[in-house]
Amino acid sequence: MQMALKDVQSLPPLRKFKLTRVGVRNMKKLIYIHRKGRVIPLIATISAYVDLPSTQKGVHMSRNIEVVNEIINLMPTEKFSGLEDVMEYIARKLLERHEYAKTACARAWSYYFREETTPRGRVTVEYYKILAKAVVHRENGMKKMIGVQVVGSSACPCAMETTKEILNLDKKRVGITHNQRNIVTVLMEVPEGYDVDADDLIDIVNSSFSAPTYEYLKRDDEGALVVRMHENPMFVEDIVREILGRILERYSNLPDETMVIVRSESLESIHKHNAYAERIATLGELRS
Amino acid sequence: MQMALKDVQSLPPLRKFKLTRVGVRNMKKLIYIHRKGRVIPLIATISAYVDLPSTQKGVHMSRNIEVVNEIINLMPTEKFSGLEDVMEYIARKLLERHEYAKTACARAWSYYFREETTPRGRVTVEYYKILAKAVVHRENGMKKMIGVQVVGSSACPCAMETTKEILNLDKKRVGITHNQRNIVTVLMEVPEGYDVDADDLIDIVNSSFSAPTYEYLKRDDEGALVVRMHENPMFVEDIVREILGRILERYSNLPDETMVIVRSESLESIHKHNAYAERIATLGELRS
Amino acid sequence: MQMALKDVQSLPPLRKFKLTRVGVRNMKKLIYIHRKGRVIPLIATISAYVDLPSTQKGVHMSRNIEVVNEIINLMPTEKFSGLEDVMEYIARKLLERHEYAKTACARAWSYYFREETTPRGRVTVEYYKILAKAVVHRENGMKKMIGVQVVGSSACPCAMETTKEILNLDKKRVGITHNQRNIVTVLMEVPEGYDVDADDLIDIVNSSFSAPTYEYLKRDDEGALVVRMHENPMFVEDIVREILGRILERYSNLPDETMVIVRSESLESIHKHNAYAERIATLGELRS
Amino acid sequence: MQMALKDVQSLPPLRKFKLTRVGVRNMKKLIYIHRKGRVIPLIATISAYVDLPSTQKGVHMSRNIEVVNEIINLMPTEKFSGLEDVMEYIARKLLERHEYAKTACARAWSYYFREETTPRGRVTVEYYKILAKAVVHRENGMKKMIGVQVVGSSACPCAMETTKEILNLDKKRVGITHNQRNIVTVLMEVPEGYDVDADDLIDIVNSSFSAPTYEYLKRDDEGALVVRMHENPMFVEDIVREILGRILERYSNLPDETMVIVRSESLESIHKHNAYAERIATLGELRS
Repeated sequence: MQMALKDVQSLPPLRKFKLTRVGVRNMKKLIYIHRKGRVIPLIATISAYVDLPSTQKGVHMSRNIEVVNEIINLMPTEKFSGLEDVMEYIARKLLERHEYAKTACARAWSYYFREETTPRGRVTVEYYKILAKAVVHRENGMKKMIGVQVVGSSACPCAMETTKEILNLDKKRVGITHNQRNIVTVLMEVPEGYDVDADDLIDIVNSSFSAPTYEYLKRDDEGALVVRMHENPMFVEDIVREILGRILERYSNLPDETMVIVRSESLESIHKHNAYAERIATLGELRS
Repeated sequence: MQMALKDVQSLPPLRKFKLTRVGVRNMKKLIYIHRKGRVIPLIATISAYVDLPSTQKGVHMSRNIEVVNEIINLMPTEKFSGLEDVMEYIARKLLERHEYAKTACARAWSYYFREETTPRGRVTVEYYKILAKAVVHRENGMKKMIGVQVVGSSACPCAMETTKEILNLDKKRVGITHNQRNIVTVLMEVPEGYDVDADDLIDIVNSSFSAPTYEYLKRDDEGALVVRMHENPMFVEDIVREILGRILERYSNLPDETMVIVRSESLESIHKHNAYAERIATLGELRS
Repeated sequence: MQMALKDVQSLPPLRKFKLTRVGVRNMKKLIYIHRKGRVIPLIATISAYVDLPSTQKGVHMSRNIEVVNEIINLMPTEKFSGLEDVMEYIARKLLERHEYAKTACARAWSYYFREETTPRGRVTVEYYKILAKAVVHRENGMKKMIGVQVVGSSACPCAMETTKEILNLDKKRVGITHNQRNIVTVLMEVPEGYDVDADDLIDIVNSSFSAPTYEYLKRDDEGALVVRMHENPMFVEDIVREILGRILERYSNLPDETMVIVRSESLESIHKHNAYAERIATLGELRS
Repeated sequence: MQMALKDVQSLPPLRKFKLTRVGVRNMKKLIYIHRKGRVIPLIATISAYVDLPSTQKGVHMSRNIEVVNEIINLMPTEKFSGLEDVMEYIARKLLERHEYAKTACARAWSYYFREETTPRGRVTVEYYKILAKAVVHRENGMKKMIGVQVVGSSACPCAMETTKEILNLDKKRVGITHNQRNIVTVLMEVPEGYDVDADDLIDIVNSSFSAPTYEYLKRDDEGALVVRMHENPMFVEDIVREILGRILERYSNLPDETMVIVRSESLESIHKHNAYAERIATLGELRS
């Protein structure tokens, strides 16, 4: 059947406002990343948007899905080494297909698995979330972010002081305190010409908790981890600052304008609510 | 307009299977409970179902909503003292309205607030989830359940032994261990002629954690709570058993057939996964 | 017991970075709003933050909870008429209690119920989400936002054209199309000295869908609603623009700097993903 | 360090109740399935439990994780062809490791991707959820289930009749109606010696909606899909029955005791709540 269909999207809208973002949310796609000699499958939840001028009724949304599908088909040959590169590629293609758009944005998250070694040297596979985002402007450049979400633990330094007092314990030794699951999110801009490795961000975060978490722990591991957690009591504030400090050390080469977001949320074991700390800043602001 | 509409629901179905449950899910309603001299607002998420014979295409679903609405309108005069009574009323009305149904089921959950006293005597308002369910059979009676979900804490008894060994601590004193948020769910049948009070279930659960949780804690409260948590190290298994024991003591009058479900889930501070224990049994099985 | 406890929070931190936001998340509180002669119970999920200077290790988080509790105790006498006013009050008190903070932020959401009339004149109680936020700066003023989240429906104008073609239907009559649940979020700044009523925002949104949704519909209501939906086919883009237009009309008195956010998300009936449109702008930008 | 640690788990409990299920929840693991010549990566969320006798304080939970890890290490050589086979293997190993347990249970879900063809012949990759469960009893055998969750659409047959009346349309042609996203879950027992293929279940479900959903649709596909949806108006009840009928036809060889669960939930476009239908039955009950 040959249909001469009216292009409804291209009609003028009744109300002439431009729109900041229009697109699709929560596509799920199996993609492959080629990284350090490994091929890594990611089940990514992807969103893809463009802006819309005030003169046009709608975005041609199927093009967003088309672009994502084409990139997945490219994957055997075009070897992407990071989720943020896939997002950049999608955002650039979105601008090509939506000739009326000035900005395109693609974002995604996925679980990500890698081997770790427990305190007593056992091998375990741990999972993380990888976050990625790219915004491409037709006229003034591109911004790309890579991020991670990591589950660790925090032990409260304040309650530890209190219980030492209550129980009349040696002030120089570790004391009992409440500890809990802590969820850290780090998002970092990747300036053009630089590389930020999600694995490095995971390492930084894992080193900045009171202790990291592991799926697999035998008893000596568990003991060592609990001791470590109590030797490093940390508020959510401390965790965020520790990560900021390590980011400054690791990325001393990155320019001052590079944006960083660090969040720590503790699922408090003594409360029904969560404790939370956050810093949003450029590397320049952190350096001064 | 007067329409002579075909009753589509009453048509014979193409495939003649009866259905176990048909209805509406996730209605949200503001309801009022009259209890111990207080009027308590609940924002309830309600589901309401009936079974459907093999001879009829569909359930008249708007009747389910009608029934729920009517009950809410009744609330100023018909004083319900518990969410499970509201569910029973709804289920009975559903059977009246759906003359073809043999079974009706209504269930709901809501947040519920009440005052508690912290370890050092401060007043705090804590929240809980109330769960309720009623199943009414046209021929053989009714079953009703009331339940609660409570957020507390658990401290691991196993890691405490390990760290005493590692740190060479006095075995008779409390040692450091991992502790974490623990979520307990209790569901209990309410046999006809008996009463089970959600407040009692909350008290039982709050007494069965390593320690309860509070929204509001000053420093001496926090210290006392952490000490209590470490003086009562408990596995998820221990928490479930402690609750089962206290239920047997509190409800010695209830008949043997009374069904009980107790679940404890720990958001492990040293793992990314949760620890879980559950018992489903009749009081008779627990008593033997 | 009289304890001379070290104030751990007031210590200097190891890593001297200031923090953007530190506080508590996901407190749940039963609060009462006095509005148009009604007393409305809200079960609010509240977060409360302050910023933290680089010289101090931690925020005294229990003060955040203290502040929230005090406000709830005030409610019988201090009659708040909106959730955003409660948030402003909390944020102001947070700044008083945290003498080291320069900024305080409080935000909350709650379900909210009100009566509506169906297309055929039946009374039904519908639920909405109310969103509120206040940010108070010690030196330069306060910003307050009120918002709503509303569940409606959208019918696709593009597929309607296609099916008219395929089925060779009269172009001037409504045609079949895919329609679906659509979730709209509106957030609007409330400049000092002005009032923005959440009920008005709900009215605006309900008028801007292809059709609103109702919990309770008898058959003639349902028919009328489906016809209305098909007489008003709308993309997510159209819904956002319709709301923007109605906001401009309703709030012609508000200053140009007033910030507005409008989002529409369609749970596409023919796709597994969602369609999405958003505009973030000041009233001034929308007016030009 | 050589530690002579007390086996805390093996101690007698204070309260001597046996427990129905004890274990770990929400492990996330990357696993590989070998199926029809393809190697399929699944990111599985896994839970693993055993029962616990009344004489023992706790389960040795790290063994559950050990078992899961070992199976993942086996995957290159031991080629599992279905998620339910992985679950059976885990459950059998759990019973070996927990010598005190009488029952072991493993369950998991994962997203799963496969190619589909749109109404107009385009290739698209669609995602589904795969569900699997195995329960192994030390004395009396094993039960295994495979399931799928599929997102499709439903068009209401009742509102279609009403609008034909209101709009005075030709009764023999399709009319306008509300349609919406519909989520179907099917769980089916896999008796020993038989095979139930998740791909077949997906095919059955995709054929039983008013229309299936696709991520990628160009305009002629979209039109064809909307027409198909309106030519097949279905209640949630109809969808469940259609699936039951097709299961009976496809699995005529399976024994009468085989358990089947079918659920359909519609995210109603005209309501804020969902419509729901469910059948739980054996094939024998369905056949009679």
